[in-house]
Amino acid sequence: MRMGRSVNFQDEIKVRTEETEEIIRRYLPEEDGFARTMAQAMNYSMLAGGKRLRPMLMRETYRLFGGNEKVIEPFMAGIEMIHTHSLIHDDLPALDNDDYRRGKLTTHKVFGEAMGVLSGVSLLNYAYETMLRAFSLSQETDRVVQALTVMAEKTGIHGMLGGQSVDVENDGKLIDKGMLDYIYENKTSALIEASMMTGAILAGADKSQISLVENAAKNIGLAFQIQDDILDVTGTDQELGKPVHSDEKNHKVTYVTLLGIKKASEKAEELTREAISQLKSLQKNNEFLFMMVEKLINRRK
Amino acid sequence: MRMGRSVNFQDEIKVRTEETEEIIRRYLPEEDGFARTMAQAMNYSMLAGGKRLRPMLMRETYRLFGGNEKVIEPFMAGIEMIHTHSLIHDDLPALDNDDYRRGKLTTHKVFGEAMGVLSGVSLLNYAYETMLRAFSLSQETDRVVQALTVMAEKTGIHGMLGGQSVDVENDGKLIDKGMLDYIYENKTSALIEASMMTGAILAGADKSQISLVENAAKNIGLAFQIQDDILDVTGTDQELGKPVHSDEKNHKVTYVTLLGIKKASEKAEELTREAISQLKSLQKNNEFLFMMVEKLINRRK
Repeated sequence: MRMGRSVNFQDEIKVRTEETEEIIRRYLPEEDGFARTMAQAMNYSMLAGGKRLRPMLMRETYRLFGGNEKVIEPFMAGIEMIHTHSLIHDDLPALDNDDYRRGKLTTHKVFGEAMGVLSGVSLLNYAYETMLRAFSLSQETDRVVQALTVMAEKTGIHGMLGGQSVDVENDGKLIDKGMLDYIYENKTSALIEASMMTGAILAGADKSQISLVENAAKNIGLAFQIQDDILDVTGTDQELGKPVHSDEKNHKVTYVTLLGIKKASEKAEELTREAISQLKSLQKNNEFLFMMVEKLINRRK
Repeated sequence: MRMGRSVNFQDEIKVRTEETEEIIRRYLPEEDGFARTMAQAMNYSMLAGGKRLRPMLMRETYRLFGGNEKVIEPFMAGIEMIHTHSLIHDDLPALDNDDYRRGKLTTHKVFGEAMGVLSGVSLLNYAYETMLRAFSLSQETDRVVQALTVMAEKTGIHGMLGGQSVDVENDGKLIDKGMLDYIYENKTSALIEASMMTGAILAGADKSQISLVENAAKNIGLAFQIQDDILDVTGTDQELGKPVHSDEKNHKVTYVTLLGIKKASEKAEELTREAISQLKSLQKNNEFLFMMVEKLINRRK
């Protein structure tokens, strides 16, 4: 499981991403019966690509704390369903009104707007159906309850959905850094926190370790979102699979508009360093996890 | 808890509805912080009236099996949140495009369409946050897990959301009775089943009892939906708080269009009688529950 720096990171991340894909696919709904069109819409969005960042971070954090059971798998599939649900809804005409994501037509463009709403919700609900299966995979019932509780809180009004709502409500408005940080910490960091905390909880981490992981994840999420802002300015449509310069067109306040590219980059690097140093302070080894976090701010998509 | 037929049913249902309202209100999100507008949207729809049928049936089934603990309360609030989430989304422009419900402006008319989507999802997620609290109210962890699992399955693609998706997909099309029954059994019955099964599960009912309750609830849900079809033809806008004759205008296939009002009424009565006889076969007494079920098909809204 552990790897030295000598192992080729690019090869290894390919292998682990494919393993994650396989786990996710196993938990997708069957496309049969009367409701097969909705199952198709759910699976279309789930299989439209993506880095699988959240389940990967979850699994590597689980390994960091010595976890090696199957109980992590329904949670890996679940967090990706929750994330994907938020993308489907983000793209709806009533929200960002995007036709493309990852170079493919968005769900509502293929299946219609009503099915966009319903299949998004249905993925969120299916995440819970899926995660509840963890009770049959573990004797550690308390840990599963705690992980489910964290997932629900970080997804809801006091997490991702809260962040989305404030983002939508202030669309095109000049907002201050306090509100921007609130939006980033919830819209983006909350699910990264849920991923890594769930990994720690299921592996039996104690309260102070879980709290440290939460803080590291918050920093990783913030760095990730700042890098997203930067890529919107410096990337190409082809690399990102969606139109660049959308923030500028939408008069959106971002870390780039607030600080400029150079300072925003420095901030993302600083947050990443901080996160890695927090994780290393646990005195546990998962070199792959540390490298994964490090590489996140150098990504091109 | 138990009541004879001599007790005035109208007085008693008023009292029990108010108790249910009080329980639901206790679990609603605070309207504070950055995301307070979404909390307002969630609470607006939760407090816009309604019969509280599902939490009432849940509680009375719980009592039928001798349940008398607080663990039922987060589930009562949860099922009403799930139900209300589905109403918010049903009313969206992309779905039924309704401006009024229960005589009040629909959520997206008051808070905008984006907030309609997000507050609906947020209520569904908050239902899980709320129901997960039940673990701290009961030592019977297995029962709570089983109840959560039933709630998730009956809500999702193999339950209510599946029914909604097929309903939406076949909007305005001529569908056969097989598909209509699928839609009714999922769109409407599934949450009634979840309510009553949860009551039975949390009170410690055994497998065959739970299965009997599931069947009775399916019949109640179907009778309820047929009565809804009838009221759309025979009711007034004022009674229903929404426009009548909407099915006819939308060329919707219903039990009334398939069978005519008289036969549809007979079917609803037959299903109700069957449900009550199933519940009575348990040899347990909750006269209030039996009367509640009986009165459902005589309602005017």
